[in-house]
Amino acid sequence: MAIVQCVPNFSEGRDLDKIEKIVNPLRGKEGVKLLNYEADKNYNRLVVTVIGEPEKVKNAVFEAIGVAKDVIDMNTHKGQHSRFGATDVCPFIPIKGMDMDDAVKIANELGEMVAKEYEIPVFLYECAATKPERENLATVRKGEYEGLDEKLQDPNWMPDYGANKKHPTAGAIAIGARRPLIAYNINLDTTNIEIASKIAKTIRHSSGGYRYIKAGPVEVPERKMTQVTMNLTDYTKTSMYRAFEAVKMEARRYGVNVTGSEVVGLCPMEALVDVATYYLGLEDFTLDKVLETSLME
Amino acid sequence: MAIVQCVPNFSEGRDLDKIEKIVNPLRGKEGVKLLNYEADKNYNRLVVTVIGEPEKVKNAVFEAIGVAKDVIDMNTHKGQHSRFGATDVCPFIPIKGMDMDDAVKIANELGEMVAKEYEIPVFLYECAATKPERENLATVRKGEYEGLDEKLQDPNWMPDYGANKKHPTAGAIAIGARRPLIAYNINLDTTNIEIASKIAKTIRHSSGGYRYIKAGPVEVPERKMTQVTMNLTDYTKTSMYRAFEAVKMEARRYGVNVTGSEVVGLCPMEALVDVATYYLGLEDFTLDKVLETSLME
Repeated sequence: MAIVQCVPNFSEGRDLDKIEKIVNPLRGKEGVKLLNYEADKNYNRLVVTVIGEPEKVKNAVFEAIGVAKDVIDMNTHKGQHSRFGATDVCPFIPIKGMDMDDAVKIANELGEMVAKEYEIPVFLYECAATKPERENLATVRKGEYEGLDEKLQDPNWMPDYGANKKHPTAGAIAIGARRPLIAYNINLDTTNIEIASKIAKTIRHSSGGYRYIKAGPVEVPERKMTQVTMNLTDYTKTSMYRAFEAVKMEARRYGVNVTGSEVVGLCPMEALVDVATYYLGLEDFTLDKVLETSLME
Repeated sequence: MAIVQCVPNFSEGRDLDKIEKIVNPLRGKEGVKLLNYEADKNYNRLVVTVIGEPEKVKNAVFEAIGVAKDVIDMNTHKGQHSRFGATDVCPFIPIKGMDMDDAVKIANELGEMVAKEYEIPVFLYECAATKPERENLATVRKGEYEGLDEKLQDPNWMPDYGANKKHPTAGAIAIGARRPLIAYNINLDTTNIEIASKIAKTIRHSSGGYRYIKAGPVEVPERKMTQVTMNLTDYTKTSMYRAFEAVKMEARRYGVNVTGSEVVGLCPMEALVDVATYYLGLEDFTLDKVLETSLME
């Protein structure tokens, strides 16, 4: 059985009644599991995580997008986070028994449904992007809701699905496919944030480090330590153990020790199996050999 | 959702028609997954692995035991493996969302059903044993099918369920509960089997090593190496990384290197997560943080 994760972001982080209405279609459906939803008042944004069978997740999320269209009016929306639609972004993440092409296909199917049934213009992004300049969500969303009328007149910004006309209250939507992120932090036994910062720079892509690591320094004063905080944006290409060993290796320069690490949120089984496989030098070990895998097929 | 594994062993390893009849009740049932079955001609024995929801696994295995009773006649059975019944042993292994007490409960429920409906005397073993001397399967089965009439007259060997009278063709059955085994082999870059043997002795319980390691030496001539081959009989108490690091540590004495390792068969996710947690020094990491876990609840 294939499993997809979907993390739709909605432009409502304050009105609990509306939030519940949006989340409701994602509850109690066979084959769809609502893992988590968090509303941020400053952002005025709701981030929902659902997981399950691709077709069923797609249909449930389609319903939620319909509710968001009805209860959110972007003309009066204010918040600190960039946004251009009632359902602002909707990425699909292949988890198991499917590959990125399958996730791109679901993104396309949902895009077609949303454009046709709700008359919301759809942009495909990241792995689902139809042009290189649409891969980056920030570029797709540039101009935000307030700039949509103008953007949609630009021939370079014709939507992938739907007419080049914003929905009068729901704006536009970015639907995409991407790898799962792992939020991974490594503890250093120093309070010197400069050291954490220098280590972060050596491992992150933007400063010459690993291709799929975003990293920065964080102070953790209550534990008298600092962290290198990371997003591993493709753990199949930049593994957790590689980030861990690289930070250990760089910390040596400062006489600093790595004292541990933590995963924030969820972590795919495959990433952990890869860590175990590396350290034990396991030969021919595949996910099929994990007992629980057999239950999920 | 709780998940149990069950590994019934049947006394038929040659007649494909009978084997298929026995396995058949374990196929295509909702909530029950047939993972594997292997028949051994020399042993004249069939080992089946099923996994799934406890109640459903119990009922499916009960059916298979009924078929084995009907198609196997122990009076004409010959094979190299010890055995005292048509369904010889039937262990339940708690995998997820249940503990050993739950597995013991299932063993008892199945025992009661088997004694009542099939008139087969039932001995409970390992974690389900009702007396210390019944924990060890070898002791329970001692005397084999041919010695059953005599054994059942011994007041110390009254069955846990059923009358003290063997089934005329199916004999007796041992039903139990145990931890999952991990069959784990570690590669050494030496062809000297003596070295593998000495290392195995330092780590195994029977020679003074770790409580839950059974180990021995194996030659792998086609790869010009040897292995320490192990059963980890309780990975929650003797972890895979501990076995690995202990073998590495002992190999140093002989100037030998550990070049890798392998898992034979299946390995519970928890054991691999424990390995990753150890090597990365992960704080507060629980199985709940594995994405796939949320799908299995």
